[in-house]
Amino acid sequence: MQKLRVAVIGAGRIGKIHATNLATRLPDVELVAISDVRLESAQDAAKALRIPKALSDYHDFLNSKDIDAVVICSPTDTHARIIEEAAAAGKHIFCEKPIDLDLGIIHRALAAVAKAKVKFQVGFNRRFDPSFRKAAEAVRSGKLGTPHLVRITSRDPAPPPLDYVKVSGGLFLDMTIHDFDMARYLLGDEIDAVTTMASCLVDPQIGKAGDVDTAIVTLRYRNGAFGAIDNSRRAVYGYDQRVEVFGSKGCVTVSNSTPTNAGIWDAEGQHRDLPLNFFLERYQEAYLEEMRGFVSAVLDGKDTPVTGDDGLQAVLLGLAAKKSLELNRPVKISEVAGHGTKGRVAA
Amino acid sequence: MQKLRVAVIGAGRIGKIHATNLATRLPDVELVAISDVRLESAQDAAKALRIPKALSDYHDFLNSKDIDAVVICSPTDTHARIIEEAAAAGKHIFCEKPIDLDLGIIHRALAAVAKAKVKFQVGFNRRFDPSFRKAAEAVRSGKLGTPHLVRITSRDPAPPPLDYVKVSGGLFLDMTIHDFDMARYLLGDEIDAVTTMASCLVDPQIGKAGDVDTAIVTLRYRNGAFGAIDNSRRAVYGYDQRVEVFGSKGCVTVSNSTPTNAGIWDAEGQHRDLPLNFFLERYQEAYLEEMRGFVSAVLDGKDTPVTGDDGLQAVLLGLAAKKSLELNRPVKISEVAGHGTKGRVAA
Amino acid sequence: MQKLRVAVIGAGRIGKIHATNLATRLPDVELVAISDVRLESAQDAAKALRIPKALSDYHDFLNSKDIDAVVICSPTDTHARIIEEAAAAGKHIFCEKPIDLDLGIIHRALAAVAKAKVKFQVGFNRRFDPSFRKAAEAVRSGKLGTPHLVRITSRDPAPPPLDYVKVSGGLFLDMTIHDFDMARYLLGDEIDAVTTMASCLVDPQIGKAGDVDTAIVTLRYRNGAFGAIDNSRRAVYGYDQRVEVFGSKGCVTVSNSTPTNAGIWDAEGQHRDLPLNFFLERYQEAYLEEMRGFVSAVLDGKDTPVTGDDGLQAVLLGLAAKKSLELNRPVKISEVAGHGTKGRVAA
Amino acid sequence: MQKLRVAVIGAGRIGKIHATNLATRLPDVELVAISDVRLESAQDAAKALRIPKALSDYHDFLNSKDIDAVVICSPTDTHARIIEEAAAAGKHIFCEKPIDLDLGIIHRALAAVAKAKVKFQVGFNRRFDPSFRKAAEAVRSGKLGTPHLVRITSRDPAPPPLDYVKVSGGLFLDMTIHDFDMARYLLGDEIDAVTTMASCLVDPQIGKAGDVDTAIVTLRYRNGAFGAIDNSRRAVYGYDQRVEVFGSKGCVTVSNSTPTNAGIWDAEGQHRDLPLNFFLERYQEAYLEEMRGFVSAVLDGKDTPVTGDDGLQAVLLGLAAKKSLELNRPVKISEVAGHGTKGRVAA
Repeated sequence: MQKLRVAVIGAGRIGKIHATNLATRLPDVELVAISDVRLESAQDAAKALRIPKALSDYHDFLNSKDIDAVVICSPTDTHARIIEEAAAAGKHIFCEKPIDLDLGIIHRALAAVAKAKVKFQVGFNRRFDPSFRKAAEAVRSGKLGTPHLVRITSRDPAPPPLDYVKVSGGLFLDMTIHDFDMARYLLGDEIDAVTTMASCLVDPQIGKAGDVDTAIVTLRYRNGAFGAIDNSRRAVYGYDQRVEVFGSKGCVTVSNSTPTNAGIWDAEGQHRDLPLNFFLERYQEAYLEEMRGFVSAVLDGKDTPVTGDDGLQAVLLGLAAKKSLELNRPVKISEVAGHGTKGRVAA
Repeated sequence: MQKLRVAVIGAGRIGKIHATNLATRLPDVELVAISDVRLESAQDAAKALRIPKALSDYHDFLNSKDIDAVVICSPTDTHARIIEEAAAAGKHIFCEKPIDLDLGIIHRALAAVAKAKVKFQVGFNRRFDPSFRKAAEAVRSGKLGTPHLVRITSRDPAPPPLDYVKVSGGLFLDMTIHDFDMARYLLGDEIDAVTTMASCLVDPQIGKAGDVDTAIVTLRYRNGAFGAIDNSRRAVYGYDQRVEVFGSKGCVTVSNSTPTNAGIWDAEGQHRDLPLNFFLERYQEAYLEEMRGFVSAVLDGKDTPVTGDDGLQAVLLGLAAKKSLELNRPVKISEVAGHGTKGRVAA
Repeated sequence: MQKLRVAVIGAGRIGKIHATNLATRLPDVELVAISDVRLESAQDAAKALRIPKALSDYHDFLNSKDIDAVVICSPTDTHARIIEEAAAAGKHIFCEKPIDLDLGIIHRALAAVAKAKVKFQVGFNRRFDPSFRKAAEAVRSGKLGTPHLVRITSRDPAPPPLDYVKVSGGLFLDMTIHDFDMARYLLGDEIDAVTTMASCLVDPQIGKAGDVDTAIVTLRYRNGAFGAIDNSRRAVYGYDQRVEVFGSKGCVTVSNSTPTNAGIWDAEGQHRDLPLNFFLERYQEAYLEEMRGFVSAVLDGKDTPVTGDDGLQAVLLGLAAKKSLELNRPVKISEVAGHGTKGRVAA
Repeated sequence: MQKLRVAVIGAGRIGKIHATNLATRLPDVELVAISDVRLESAQDAAKALRIPKALSDYHDFLNSKDIDAVVICSPTDTHARIIEEAAAAGKHIFCEKPIDLDLGIIHRALAAVAKAKVKFQVGFNRRFDPSFRKAAEAVRSGKLGTPHLVRITSRDPAPPPLDYVKVSGGLFLDMTIHDFDMARYLLGDEIDAVTTMASCLVDPQIGKAGDVDTAIVTLRYRNGAFGAIDNSRRAVYGYDQRVEVFGSKGCVTVSNSTPTNAGIWDAEGQHRDLPLNFFLERYQEAYLEEMRGFVSAVLDGKDTPVTGDDGLQAVLLGLAAKKSLELNRPVKISEVAGHGTKGRVAA
């Protein structure tokens, strides 16, 4: 079988994760190029991973017939433009989340993908975590009966840099967006309305930057279930990533993963490891699996496991959560989606 | 030291729990009488526990000088009246929750207690569960830092009889009321506003009776923390009673208690016991401890560990939760408390 | 139904546990007397528990027709004599372990019981722990298949006083004796041979007193299974009481019980309670259940759940373990039992 | 820095694990050749991993100056010969366990390594498991005080093929050998004597082949600690790999690893995953880490983390365990080691 020839756009932290998996752990892939506006970053990655080409401008390879697919890991505000260019060039596309923060731009990018009939996948890596996957499969199997309640806890070990907070779209669009996708993934059901409670409890600088750092967002699903997401930008004990689905016939819970299974008992108590510290550790295998899913979808002509609509819905939920915080009332997704197809939503 | 001479009013399920603890496990107590409108119930309990007197009418002992305190376990709609009578007779009072469903009636009963200067304790037994107590102490000790998020899961193994649902005041006033008290107890802070999402997912008959059976109530505390309570009238795996407090310096979580610590590993999986099935099992020791606390408060002249105001606040939160569900918006406690002192709140 | 009229002989620590359960938690029992060579001990217990008679000499009630059964909690070297006297008086007998340290004396006491046809139960309380009971039931149910391996961990939080060590018969006869009984109870099979490794690692004073404080005793069962018991006189983290049975179809494991289910996560780790500190806490309910079993056996004319032979076998295993340590080789139980029926075994 | 140029000898199951890690996950390595007496096996691996050379005879590359180190994954009875040849050629050597089953042959191979002054590492992969490593570090740190007791549970999900049983040296030399190494590794102390109880409970065919399938081996350490290893060739619930070290100041326990952290609670119980099924899953990362340790030792001129003496000691313990089973008594390691330096020990 022919290998899938891939180029990575963006050699930052997430770009290097994907490049490493593509270069070393996916035998069906040939990683042929990596680009970064900082050329040295691309060159360093290329050297470490023996990637043939390192460039500062992805345009230099985008129309090459030696490339089948691109993996977009550049800053969020460049995603949509690159998607449109890559689609026009007939390349399959894996794009980090979010597609964009503007609904109109998202719709235009997805239209370009649809027109070009290329494969498109959004980087919601958590769906590929074995524990969360098992939870979702337990729901789909019917063994939990009808879902009634969903709980998602998602707390970061430390806030991102303030510069990032200012451009990320805020907590709901850079952090909770993963939980919104998880909420949809776990039940395979759409969310009808959200209600937000949030404020700045961790770091006043985040508040000055116009964002919140602590939140509870409640969810009403179309099929009648309810959910609650709780977020914090700083959990001193590490990356806290737990979910629970409660149904008429049972409940599935996912607890945190730890580096070891060693417990120490001394005169003070019984002690165990803290959770794996952050996403690189917790989702190491999930990043590999999502890329394996993308590669397999392209090579085998299957649907990608995370679609453009998944990318859109998560952004809609983030926008609705923001609006609920502003208005201090429940907000239906239809309230933010309605205008979305026509123009820019004030996010 | 003189023993505390106690009479129990009401020999139903909860009355028998308290009578048993008073008769057999509290050496400082002399249980001298028990009454029930069904005389046989009182007589059966008296025989089993060697209680000297069994009566159908508590008035027959209420003014006796041989009794120091009463434990009120009769139906909710008789609580306030008995409180007023017992206070007038100078008896110390332990009363099961809720004091009443009507704010005006509650205020009048508490005024009678205040005037009589007798001890008064409301039966919020969960505060005396060793695990929840440890969680609250972890918060008070400061080792968790400033509280940011509270999560309370409270799911019953099966719904109560429909006849009870019709008179109980509904989910928020008969079931969530315990969680509201727990929410206040865990942080030692008052709740400013609640938002309710709820519907009838477990049993349509509950809906026809005008109640809900599945709910998420979010909480905003005065000091800035947020909380979420989730409730279900039916968890097939048993009584699910968990709490979590997340703060700036750490997190405390309480998981369910099980009958044994035996695990079985076979070809299908690793299996453990279900949680203790219901409140009689889970809170067996808590019922003893709350009564020990009441007895100690009277004998040692200390404050009772759960006050009349605690009983009032939990009802206010239940009324606010109902109102939030009706209006589909956040409701401040002040919205329901304001009218409470003047007249009957539609509950 | 007539109540069982019981007297307790010995008002020390274990005597008070049994007296409390008999007086307050077993409605079918009337605790009519307690004796202790220290009269004040008996009087204190009688006062606290409202026991009608407190005496210094049990002979004063042993032949009274107002007593149906005795509970022997006096020092070990008095057990056999009291058993013979009580049997001669036609009283049913509950006796704390061990019956005696001398096989000839044990056989004579059991012969007296057999002749008198009274009920007889030895105080192996751990069989009544709900977790260990569940493990034994899992074996008996066949769901674990044929048992292959047994592991018993039994470590005390602190060594007993040296004065006790000198007269107790040593580690194998005062501490491991419980584990030998557990080993027999879990499989319902007899042990054929034991091999001992032991030394004094905790406290040199114990060694000077002629005893060991740390041991591993391996077991060979008649039906082919193997087992290992490990003991220590001092676990700094508390009372460590775990068992495991591994069979051809599965495995049951019992972990330690803790005072609460609260976990604390902070920047240092995830922390849980230490195990319940010692036997009074860990086996609180087991002590009640074993007495309930005895009372029920007498009142309902059933076999007692722990027999005289159970008491004998555990002593035989203790003697064999000592002999294995002396000879540094496996010792068959038949090697120590053979002489046992004829005369005193050097223990 | 120059890459380490490595050749793998043997392309069976374990050879492919090492080849994959060397080819894809160790950037400092260049995997230049793989050999197998079945040429197709070598060719298949070479194709999958892009290894330049695939050969049937390792002699074809052993003296090549393009190779710095060999990884020996061929059958046990070829290990010693290849070690001697590779040492003579000046190649660094990683060799799977056991070095050989014959002490004289082991000594001669280790002498060749010593003379050639090449690096030598034995494949005791479990030392590199993060949980076991943490346990060993807890001991070394002193936080557990003086070690008193060690427990190692090691049970395979299913017996190996009978053909393997017949040539493997038996349970103690092919399976328990890992536990003997773990016992030494955990305490950093040598074992003085072992006592074995074992028989054939899993499969009578194993017994007919002259081996046992269920065993408990107790250990006496030089510094006074005791240990117990329990083994079974078949645990229906999967690969059971647990250790515990109990010391004067605390205890460390390692429980099994599971594929996910998802728990399911239904009307029957609380259910979790079975342990990772077998060594490929459980020790996936450990295999990588042991090879990283070897590569680093060579490139950085450090000692290898597992030495030739470690390989020798584990074999001595296996031989002593066999002898103890034959003689039904404790066997000192000096009893088997004494003759070992002079000639062949009947294994």
